[in-house]
Amino acid sequence: MAESILIIGGVAAGLSAASRARRLSPRARITVLERGPVASYGACGLPYFLAGEIASLHRLIAHSVDFFRQHRQIDVLTGHEAVEIEPGRRRVRVRAGGAEQWHGYDRLVIATGARARWQPQAGHSDAVRLRNVFTPTTWSGAQALDEALRGDEIRRVVVVGGGYIGLEMADALARRNRPRRLEVTLIAAGPSLLRGFDAEMAQALPARVASAGIVLRQPERVEALEGAPGGRVLGVRTGSGRLDCDAVVNCGGLRPETALASDCGVALGPTTGAIAVDERQQTNLNGVYAAGDCAETRQIVSGAPVWIPLGAAANKQGRIAGENAAGGRARFPGVLGTLALSAFGYEWGRTGLSLEQAQAAGFDAEAQYVESSSRAGYLDPQPVAIKLIYDRRSQRLLGCHLRGAPGTVAGRLDTAAVALTAGMRLEEVEMLDLVYAPDLAPLYEPLHIAAHLARQRL
Amino acid sequence: MAESILIIGGVAAGLSAASRARRLSPRARITVLERGPVASYGACGLPYFLAGEIASLHRLIAHSVDFFRQHRQIDVLTGHEAVEIEPGRRRVRVRAGGAEQWHGYDRLVIATGARARWQPQAGHSDAVRLRNVFTPTTWSGAQALDEALRGDEIRRVVVVGGGYIGLEMADALARRNRPRRLEVTLIAAGPSLLRGFDAEMAQALPARVASAGIVLRQPERVEALEGAPGGRVLGVRTGSGRLDCDAVVNCGGLRPETALASDCGVALGPTTGAIAVDERQQTNLNGVYAAGDCAETRQIVSGAPVWIPLGAAANKQGRIAGENAAGGRARFPGVLGTLALSAFGYEWGRTGLSLEQAQAAGFDAEAQYVESSSRAGYLDPQPVAIKLIYDRRSQRLLGCHLRGAPGTVAGRLDTAAVALTAGMRLEEVEMLDLVYAPDLAPLYEPLHIAAHLARQRL
Repeated sequence: MAESILIIGGVAAGLSAASRARRLSPRARITVLERGPVASYGACGLPYFLAGEIASLHRLIAHSVDFFRQHRQIDVLTGHEAVEIEPGRRRVRVRAGGAEQWHGYDRLVIATGARARWQPQAGHSDAVRLRNVFTPTTWSGAQALDEALRGDEIRRVVVVGGGYIGLEMADALARRNRPRRLEVTLIAAGPSLLRGFDAEMAQALPARVASAGIVLRQPERVEALEGAPGGRVLGVRTGSGRLDCDAVVNCGGLRPETALASDCGVALGPTTGAIAVDERQQTNLNGVYAAGDCAETRQIVSGAPVWIPLGAAANKQGRIAGENAAGGRARFPGVLGTLALSAFGYEWGRTGLSLEQAQAAGFDAEAQYVESSSRAGYLDPQPVAIKLIYDRRSQRLLGCHLRGAPGTVAGRLDTAAVALTAGMRLEEVEMLDLVYAPDLAPLYEPLHIAAHLARQRL
Repeated sequence: MAESILIIGGVAAGLSAASRARRLSPRARITVLERGPVASYGACGLPYFLAGEIASLHRLIAHSVDFFRQHRQIDVLTGHEAVEIEPGRRRVRVRAGGAEQWHGYDRLVIATGARARWQPQAGHSDAVRLRNVFTPTTWSGAQALDEALRGDEIRRVVVVGGGYIGLEMADALARRNRPRRLEVTLIAAGPSLLRGFDAEMAQALPARVASAGIVLRQPERVEALEGAPGGRVLGVRTGSGRLDCDAVVNCGGLRPETALASDCGVALGPTTGAIAVDERQQTNLNGVYAAGDCAETRQIVSGAPVWIPLGAAANKQGRIAGENAAGGRARFPGVLGTLALSAFGYEWGRTGLSLEQAQAAGFDAEAQYVESSSRAGYLDPQPVAIKLIYDRRSQRLLGCHLRGAPGTVAGRLDTAAVALTAGMRLEEVEMLDLVYAPDLAPLYEPLHIAAHLARQRL
């Protein structure tokens, strides 16, 4: 009889796993359980939908359930929530439409993703069900927020969270002008915006947030939501006072969704709290794999376990898990945490370790910051700032942060990411044969200049 | 007594050498001999000047002669032509302002650059001095062409040469509209435009040339210029007929300027015809270095000697030569031949080996061509096509060609260039942790997709 592969989670990692397993194993029975109403959507596109720049939420769907059934013979069951795993009997208890049933498996892939760390409705001091409190990082949450914004009720929005999702969402809501412009306030608890970026990179950010018409309150922590039970949210109470609003948008960070896994004996990483996996994406339980935002992975530069929930890594891990669930022997090399963000008409990117992370990881780390430009000085050059983090002993590159005008960051970040993956030293970076064309790239790339200046200091 | 370092050539390689030597050797006497009227200019910017997009040719000057004298204590002597090297007596005979003098040296750096391979005035069948025949790849040539175009005489221009310089120049002249629009004809001898690019990459080019209003005649070879001796050029005679014109612009390829070096015993590379150097940029003569477009170098992927005259490599080689002339021990790792071109509202780039070059170099080479896009499908993605060349045996990447809409090529090319430098295999490329952000880069980069598809075929 053909093997049966069961996958819990139908977004990035889960569907990559299913598709890859199908390619290796034409006869396996492959089933994907998705708790939400929709599978296979690009969650990173949700801010653009909320900004009003994508006509329909359905444009974010990469492939329909029908596509998976017809073209890949994969059953994607939406509205199906896995509520218990029984590894001993190799089966999963699933709730769907009020009923429950058991699904058996030979191999299981857990791709349950991440959830908002802050749950203002339930866990908060005013644990009442208030209307107009949204968590827009899922399909349902974004849909609910969009619908509410189409009505008359909401004019003043408070976005909670100063990480990159909070920034993207605040920017998106400030751009939205249908049916009206919104008054957006961004409340960030941390001392600087853009967690994980070194301070130089976030420098210009408060001014840019302001120029987008967004009121920034930082550092400030939301202590409670205000409103009558069952009614709509009327305001937020923070450490320094009170703020009226018509809606609260929760972008307060994520944590891995691990309850289902840990309840059945799947081990979590002690430092990350995410599901521990080996380089084949296998958990401590034989035949049980995990991938995506619920799982930890290895930071390529430091070798340490990390939890970095990002879509690109989730897809790749899903492929590895799917290949191995189908009997393959693929290995996931780890991540750099490569991340880019565009907001307020500017771009930020980082890959590898920040200076602080590098020092904490025991490197003899130092950084070189350079403000440079995107092309030849006589052809309207755009600003690009780079911060290169390196190890003084080995002269190896450890990380790279970038900030720049539109179009200047992504390619340079990828270039640095490959150099990091290869473990290049500053000397090698300085001599990289990169593009020079006056209107496309300067004679000396910011990466070259930073490597050169760093070497002078050694 | 302080050492004396003499450098022949004051553009890219020569001045990098001088500056680097100064940094290592604060007391050396450093002199740069430049034949032309101006030193330290960005020759790659000349097409933008001719297009009328840079107000003055002087904007292309990176640093003035005064800057070099005052801030770096380097004597840059323009209008000084080296006419003979006497290695035995360590001196160079120099012609300047009608007079001659000898300049002694302890270390010599030859950075004489390249010259137009086709010399229509002298070497051609109608060896007469015709007016309005220009070689716009030097300061003087571009200045002369610009001055002529400001007058009334020139309306119909023939650009000779289908390499990237010919394309850039034809595009620049077609864009120029001061004092009038020009009728531009591009004559290319080869079977395809863009020598060194594989055929898929040049596919769309003839249509784009046409849409820029340029008449393309290809394959066609210029056999003679027409005009009365001493008068202006009246037309070109080609293999298939005759073409009236008011000016001829020579972009017919380059050859290394080696006469001065070879006349005094400096060895040339047998396959390249350019000055042979070791990885320290030293020639066969002790204490005599060469760098830039006059010298050969090593192709990183194949290890073979190559001659690839490009500005970025010239600058880096110059720095290595300068460091070593000042007593250092720096090594130049070689080049990939990374090149990008923007013309006709589109971009092309290549790095490493083409399929043809890879096969000729003895690799078990194969290529994967993919048409993909620059970002998420729901955010106005722009087309990007990639061709990845790889070795089937080792699965190593050998080269990468790209073609795409504005802003899509340079960063991806650099990313591939680093992977080539690191000798990455397809599997490693497929798992590279590159940026994904819906508006900046797609979930799967063209590089990822091509590597993935290539692996499927192995």
